[in-house]
Amino acid sequence: MAEERSKVVKAEGFRWPAVDLREYKTEGTHFRGITRRTLLGEGADEQRLNFITRYFEIQPGGYSTLERHEHPHSVVIIRGEGEVILGDRVESLAANDCVYVAPMTFHQFHATGDEPLGFLCIVDRERDRPQLPTDEDVAALRRSEDVARRLKT
Amino acid sequence: MAEERSKVVKAEGFRWPAVDLREYKTEGTHFRGITRRTLLGEGADEQRLNFITRYFEIQPGGYSTLERHEHPHSVVIIRGEGEVILGDRVESLAANDCVYVAPMTFHQFHATGDEPLGFLCIVDRERDRPQLPTDEDVAALRRSEDVARRLKT
Repeated sequence: MAEERSKVVKAEGFRWPAVDLREYKTEGTHFRGITRRTLLGEGADEQRLNFITRYFEIQPGGYSTLERHEHPHSVVIIRGEGEVILGDRVESLAANDCVYVAPMTFHQFHATGDEPLGFLCIVDRERDRPQLPTDEDVAALRRSEDVARRLKT
Repeated sequence: MAEERSKVVKAEGFRWPAVDLREYKTEGTHFRGITRRTLLGEGADEQRLNFITRYFEIQPGGYSTLERHEHPHSVVIIRGEGEVILGDRVESLAANDCVYVAPMTFHQFHATGDEPLGFLCIVDRERDRPQLPTDEDVAALRRSEDVARRLKT
């Protein structure tokens, strides 16, 4: 493996000029107003990282896909306010809050404030693909009133 | 392995009431005004994470230990301003800047602004121990004028 070079990826507010905007999803799933950027881990000269540091941003009123997977997420909120569905619960989110999304927990992030909800989400480089809920899964989740009120599918 | 539960670790500014302050170092190395917290990854119910999300905060004028190791760092600045020595270079740091510290690069973070420099630093759960520089390493680093001006040993 080639020797890798340390570097700084400069920010301008919540944009990183050297980082490309990525499609959030390439397949037809249910989400709204969300963008994804990989800050560190996918570059050819960043292969020694076993984990990928991404930045997601959800516009006010937007939300991520409801999904689950075996790999856990480590999330740190760095902008705005929101709520997250974590299985049968809904929790509020604000700057510097951290979220542990455990394996196989259905989760969905919502931007509920006036500014976008922005968060870092770190995952293993090698990881399983997200699973979408079945109709039965959605019905089970909706048994929680809090979740039923917030859920978008 | 027990089933793990998703959760939110709430913040109050740059403090997380549920998270303990950890000693930055337990051995006598050269640093000043720095604290460490593990936000996610070290809890008994967070063992599925293969990486650890830590928060370091350096008081104005303070600095971290000059060191290197085989494991890389993924760093995101979330508070204040600073500079980082990365081998033979010094780079400025501000909010949302990301730093890739490649394997075996000597590095040292400095808080240069009026408020503390705070940053997330994500590392592999299983990793090698930091190596301190020899006198010869320090002499080599000091050949860079920028590094010589900033370096604290």
